[in-house]
Amino acid sequence: MKIGVIGLGYWGPNLVRNFLSTEGVEGVLCYDTDPSRVLAVARRFPMVEFAESCEDLIGRPEVAAVVLATPLSTHYPLGLQAIEAGKHLLVEKPIAASSDEARELTERADGAGLVLMVDHTFIYTGAVRKLRELVQDQELGDLLYFDSVRVNLGIFQHDTNVVWDLAPHDISILDHLVAREPESVQAIGARHYYEYEDMAYLGVRYAGNLLAHFHVNWISPVKVRRILVGGTKRMVLYDDMEPSEKIKVYDSGVELGSREDIYRTLVQYRTGDMLAPKLDLSEALGLMCREFVLSITDQREPLTGAASGLNVVRILEAADRSLASGGTVVRL
Amino acid sequence: MKIGVIGLGYWGPNLVRNFLSTEGVEGVLCYDTDPSRVLAVARRFPMVEFAESCEDLIGRPEVAAVVLATPLSTHYPLGLQAIEAGKHLLVEKPIAASSDEARELTERADGAGLVLMVDHTFIYTGAVRKLRELVQDQELGDLLYFDSVRVNLGIFQHDTNVVWDLAPHDISILDHLVAREPESVQAIGARHYYEYEDMAYLGVRYAGNLLAHFHVNWISPVKVRRILVGGTKRMVLYDDMEPSEKIKVYDSGVELGSREDIYRTLVQYRTGDMLAPKLDLSEALGLMCREFVLSITDQREPLTGAASGLNVVRILEAADRSLASGGTVVRL
Amino acid sequence: MKIGVIGLGYWGPNLVRNFLSTEGVEGVLCYDTDPSRVLAVARRFPMVEFAESCEDLIGRPEVAAVVLATPLSTHYPLGLQAIEAGKHLLVEKPIAASSDEARELTERADGAGLVLMVDHTFIYTGAVRKLRELVQDQELGDLLYFDSVRVNLGIFQHDTNVVWDLAPHDISILDHLVAREPESVQAIGARHYYEYEDMAYLGVRYAGNLLAHFHVNWISPVKVRRILVGGTKRMVLYDDMEPSEKIKVYDSGVELGSREDIYRTLVQYRTGDMLAPKLDLSEALGLMCREFVLSITDQREPLTGAASGLNVVRILEAADRSLASGGTVVRL
Amino acid sequence: MKIGVIGLGYWGPNLVRNFLSTEGVEGVLCYDTDPSRVLAVARRFPMVEFAESCEDLIGRPEVAAVVLATPLSTHYPLGLQAIEAGKHLLVEKPIAASSDEARELTERADGAGLVLMVDHTFIYTGAVRKLRELVQDQELGDLLYFDSVRVNLGIFQHDTNVVWDLAPHDISILDHLVAREPESVQAIGARHYYEYEDMAYLGVRYAGNLLAHFHVNWISPVKVRRILVGGTKRMVLYDDMEPSEKIKVYDSGVELGSREDIYRTLVQYRTGDMLAPKLDLSEALGLMCREFVLSITDQREPLTGAASGLNVVRILEAADRSLASGGTVVRL
Repeated sequence: MKIGVIGLGYWGPNLVRNFLSTEGVEGVLCYDTDPSRVLAVARRFPMVEFAESCEDLIGRPEVAAVVLATPLSTHYPLGLQAIEAGKHLLVEKPIAASSDEARELTERADGAGLVLMVDHTFIYTGAVRKLRELVQDQELGDLLYFDSVRVNLGIFQHDTNVVWDLAPHDISILDHLVAREPESVQAIGARHYYEYEDMAYLGVRYAGNLLAHFHVNWISPVKVRRILVGGTKRMVLYDDMEPSEKIKVYDSGVELGSREDIYRTLVQYRTGDMLAPKLDLSEALGLMCREFVLSITDQREPLTGAASGLNVVRILEAADRSLASGGTVVRL
Repeated sequence: MKIGVIGLGYWGPNLVRNFLSTEGVEGVLCYDTDPSRVLAVARRFPMVEFAESCEDLIGRPEVAAVVLATPLSTHYPLGLQAIEAGKHLLVEKPIAASSDEARELTERADGAGLVLMVDHTFIYTGAVRKLRELVQDQELGDLLYFDSVRVNLGIFQHDTNVVWDLAPHDISILDHLVAREPESVQAIGARHYYEYEDMAYLGVRYAGNLLAHFHVNWISPVKVRRILVGGTKRMVLYDDMEPSEKIKVYDSGVELGSREDIYRTLVQYRTGDMLAPKLDLSEALGLMCREFVLSITDQREPLTGAASGLNVVRILEAADRSLASGGTVVRL
Repeated sequence: MKIGVIGLGYWGPNLVRNFLSTEGVEGVLCYDTDPSRVLAVARRFPMVEFAESCEDLIGRPEVAAVVLATPLSTHYPLGLQAIEAGKHLLVEKPIAASSDEARELTERADGAGLVLMVDHTFIYTGAVRKLRELVQDQELGDLLYFDSVRVNLGIFQHDTNVVWDLAPHDISILDHLVAREPESVQAIGARHYYEYEDMAYLGVRYAGNLLAHFHVNWISPVKVRRILVGGTKRMVLYDDMEPSEKIKVYDSGVELGSREDIYRTLVQYRTGDMLAPKLDLSEALGLMCREFVLSITDQREPLTGAASGLNVVRILEAADRSLASGGTVVRL
Repeated sequence: MKIGVIGLGYWGPNLVRNFLSTEGVEGVLCYDTDPSRVLAVARRFPMVEFAESCEDLIGRPEVAAVVLATPLSTHYPLGLQAIEAGKHLLVEKPIAASSDEARELTERADGAGLVLMVDHTFIYTGAVRKLRELVQDQELGDLLYFDSVRVNLGIFQHDTNVVWDLAPHDISILDHLVAREPESVQAIGARHYYEYEDMAYLGVRYAGNLLAHFHVNWISPVKVRRILVGGTKRMVLYDDMEPSEKIKVYDSGVELGSREDIYRTLVQYRTGDMLAPKLDLSEALGLMCREFVLSITDQREPLTGAASGLNVVRILEAADRSLASGGTVVRL
């Protein structure tokens, strides 16, 4: 099959590179409105073909699947076009600009028997796969909290805020770790340069007293990519800036002692070994591309299908509502 | 003058040690309800005297000033007793368990011409003094945000939550940096072990679009003590876990470019040198003790007087109200 | 001009990629004895042409310059062939397997009016360029020492030891910083797996009491790339594993005090600010390729010409002699 | 028993503090030639008694044991005096200024049935105890190398060089880990400020192809305390600057592959999990003091007895000889 990639900005060329070496892909066809980007990709990947327009790319019969690496606002109209043309669809995160759009894309793809997948790349990293294994094997005990920080001097998006830009990474990781439904969302943020938030804090409550929190920021002088997962048995620090030991499992915990005397110690800590498990270092994006192709050929739901895309968008949408109202609690 | 220290738990012995070597202090008298703590201090500091009871200590005529290193709930009653006995008063942070208590202590001390000071120790560190200098000299430009993380496997308090235990450090730092009034507070948290929150996130809005955020947590496997201060000209990372380079000043900033074309870069970064200025490494607690003694002898307002104590408590109190109502915005 | 690259192992494809985008290069022709490597490069860079053999590549009239990314033992014979065929020559570090070979290549190239350059890539990094600027501007004062550690789980070379593999990076950096001649070399090492050293320590003395030391190791569990440069005025830590602040300039120094009393402090430290200057992040290899092409078109000596290649090899050769004799001092 | 401590400079007060709380010690008697140091200790530890002179202290019948925290050159004369007075003896590292002195002290103490111990404090840390456990349990396989770096802006000693000041720490650790005899020593160094080396590199060869190397430096802008131990099965990084995870065990190794083809990979790495085992955080100096007292009361050889003291001095002495001759190999 041939893959059609629309959008050759920051992420598109990475998708092109990976699809070019994905088994089962016979060729990659590209399009971007910006001729200089087309030229750059043409130079770097001379085997790539180019379409004249989105319509041209989507209309080509040899293109079995369309990949959207375009601004968020275009995901829905272009995605719909692709589905109507009978193409399988892979969309950059977040899957759409609203849950309504996400639901409609999902229904249309389902109705047409087409794969709809979202590029939640982090799900395919060795680190997140290990993290999920730890959670599912009950190595951490019951989850107490999920705390994520994703900040740096980031590229401001033209058509959306920092929440929609950065939080999908971490929300999709959490969604992948726990099978639970979020109950409520709360967000505060600030706009310093234009009409979209350049920094924000999201709190998300899940059943079972699990509190998740996300700090996203485009104007931080240092780059931080850290997730803390607290469990009753063990706790994990996932630091994506570490070159090799990205996951550290702490055999630490808290046990509440007697409360009879206000002047005495209330808790007992248990601190033990720390283990940094070996991680699979395969490029996540390559595995994601392979999953897309395999889910098409196997006619099955992909690992990061429309459902996870929708879960993420529902939280983003609620966060926007909370931001707009000054930080009120939004129930889901 | 002699100093009377009540409470010899975790922090009391540090106060004893520092007051023993503060110029102008002729002796230290102590009391604690727990005889084993009394014994430990007696062994370590044989020159220290001991009172029979709080009343005994507060009543001694040679004691010019009383220091409270006791649980939060005792600050008000013991503080009042001390003021009524005509003693200058230094109270562990936070100054009291409510703003009403803080105000009454303030009025009583003012009325009696006594010094009332709160031990916001961090204000006396070389790092915070440098940070204040940077802010006041307009080195950072206009402040955009203040983001603080103070988490570790911490000692659960018997009579209060993690917000009242850890956040006073960071709130007092922020209060010291900016002369502005907070406008609103919002807090979410979770309780996993008993009826007080063991983790929480506070958002505080200040005039001039300054957003402050505090993450406090007693159940983190790693110890983090980091403050990010974003300004329009420069940004600062204050990492208190760094042995020497605690303050890093980044000559970084963001400039918004043209928005005419959604497909083009919106911001221009400016990244430049990073400077870690030399810091005064004198022990902060020693400077705090000296400030207390000097403010008594000079009959002047101390650097961390009742006003800063009240400012901190007002935010803590609002945070509690927000926590209790599930995270609503509380105006101040 | 066309560039002919021989050797497509670890480094060759990087050279190909960079020469393909170097101004003035019209095409890249490659050769490797291993067909699977040829195939891999052909897939990744479809615009690259391939020769049938080394002889074929060197013999092609359209090839103006030959680049050797082949095992060390082949540098001399292949290099000589290229020079005899009238081709400019760029050789992977180290330039040759002995100083005699290096000298003969130099003389032949000089005689034929051809450029002979060695790929001391690090010289072209923003970090080393800044370091040189600091040294040349006398910002560090007089140099006291140069201490380098370059260790990791490394790829064992078939035809040489860890000294010839790793030390050229650091020796070439030092050679670039100081214009002085080395006086003596001393080396100790160990062989644990085969007949070449897998770890070694080199001491090199320079005029003016400058002591340089190099630790190279293929069997370290952690990757370290650190250089300390001590000066009388300031000191530098160059940590190449740091993602952004690779160069840290410490305003620190030592001043000897009175020695009259054995029980008193002998030195006074001066510790001041630390500055991490902004570095140019352009890819060093691209700048190196450009320098090669420019030195050909401008008919001038390249920045890392045969002389620096020879300086490095002389120290490596002396180190080998010292290693062979169990660590004796070898004068240069 | 009472303990007599001579020397109240940098380390002496730490010994006083720890002996004061060591079971079996009834009192501490001190002496220093510098009255200001005596005063400082008197203020901090009011229960300490003071002697008039070394002779007075050593002569007191109630003093069962003498502790020397004095400059190196005094260890032998003062130690001899103490032994002759029938006192057990604990000496700061290194035990003496020459192996002859160390041997004579040993013989005299043995002859008089007195304990002679050296304060190799690091042996009593949780980190080194864990390291020894790993080595003795064959968890690392056969040892390949021991590489230590101990550098910082350090206090220059009046009567000795940086080797005698800093290397005893690391040499004593290595001596504790392996039961082997060193075969040869080689050292290079430099003097920049006075007649003693302020930086040096020592190589020590042991039977079984074990290469040890020590980098010691008083003029480094950064403080480094790192030991790498390479084994055939696992490798360890011991970083003493890490606040909690000081020991990291890497399940990494090297396996040599086929050498038939110069163009193919020669080694296979095995990289696996990294484990940071929980360490006992008891203060090492306290354990050392206890060991001294226990070895006296139990009439047994202490853990860091005269033998380990001598082993360290023999290497230091050989290092000095090598330094003096410009770096020649000195057989032991």
